[in-house]
Amino acid sequence: MPRRQQTSATSANRTQLTPDDWIDAATQVLVEDSINAVRVDVLAKGLQVTRGSFYWHFRDRDDLLTQILKRWADAATEQLINRFERSGAAPDTLVRELANLPFRGRTAHRSAAIDQAIRAWARRDEMARRAVDDVDAKRLSYIAHCFVALGHSIKEAQHRAFLLYSYMMGEALLKNQGTDAQRDDRRRFVETLLLGQAPAENVE
Amino acid sequence: MPRRQQTSATSANRTQLTPDDWIDAATQVLVEDSINAVRVDVLAKGLQVTRGSFYWHFRDRDDLLTQILKRWADAATEQLINRFERSGAAPDTLVRELANLPFRGRTAHRSAAIDQAIRAWARRDEMARRAVDDVDAKRLSYIAHCFVALGHSIKEAQHRAFLLYSYMMGEALLKNQGTDAQRDDRRRFVETLLLGQAPAENVE
Repeated sequence: MPRRQQTSATSANRTQLTPDDWIDAATQVLVEDSINAVRVDVLAKGLQVTRGSFYWHFRDRDDLLTQILKRWADAATEQLINRFERSGAAPDTLVRELANLPFRGRTAHRSAAIDQAIRAWARRDEMARRAVDDVDAKRLSYIAHCFVALGHSIKEAQHRAFLLYSYMMGEALLKNQGTDAQRDDRRRFVETLLLGQAPAENVE
Repeated sequence: MPRRQQTSATSANRTQLTPDDWIDAATQVLVEDSINAVRVDVLAKGLQVTRGSFYWHFRDRDDLLTQILKRWADAATEQLINRFERSGAAPDTLVRELANLPFRGRTAHRSAAIDQAIRAWARRDEMARRAVDDVDAKRLSYIAHCFVALGHSIKEAQHRAFLLYSYMMGEALLKNQGTDAQRDDRRRFVETLLLGQAPAENVE
């Protein structure tokens, strides 16, 4: 979203920043540093506005943090709804699309960077933990729908969804492992394995 | 490791801290906050010693950071060597043991917390990135050995190893998803799927 008054550097004009501008700036600091670095004075300096103008949009820092999580969760959920409920694609196509998501260039890279930064925050903050758990549960539930549509039991569909989602996170976290050709081959292997039937239980 | 002179609080005795004490303290700060919070003055204060005593053991902060990574990498590799080269267990047993690792209580929790903190650091530091890539490559290679021993081609063994390792990270990252019973069932499903034969390629 282009910032209004992009060319002006005066405080008077910069006060026309929207709440989203602050949330964007805060998310960027979160990605580049950590949640402890998300401080009103640092953000105000970066946005070239007074510290006081922050309080036109947010009650306090906690209010900003809540809204960072809310926007992330909304985007994560909306992305899923677009993909799953509006596409009308066959469930196996959707599974393949999901397996391909980590390779969607800059968008995937950016989205993974924000996810990872928020997960790092959630390691030591209960509010962030709840937001992450909620987003993970929604994503897993949507992915499981695909496997149910492919004829698996709900239980097995949930397991397959968990494994596919783990794989997607794995490709983001292990992005330097293997060549492009190996990654491509690996993705096809995972698709085939997850879209296939379960092997019979091994004798223990 | 019990700290020498545990009961004394004087600086003179506290200077008997070992390099490992500093590395432990730094790792703890890394887990609880972020790499930017790992500062010599903060650590010295926490350990109740002078800032100067740090320099008896380390050239500078970068030296400490290098050694945090080195110790983490050594522990991660040693853990694997113990498990794989000295156990003499059958490869399918090793695969099941790996799938069980995320559930090994406090040890697993602590180890996952350190891994995640170091991954968060590696998102924006080249030295940490290299250490993480190296540890991931070693872990993946060891896991792939199990699948080769089970008769899979090297390529397919690598894919199965990637999926198992992703699952292990998934259980650590998604630790609040599902009940204990569901997690247990999910683990058995993943073991069965990964220890089974690959289904025939689906027609695209």
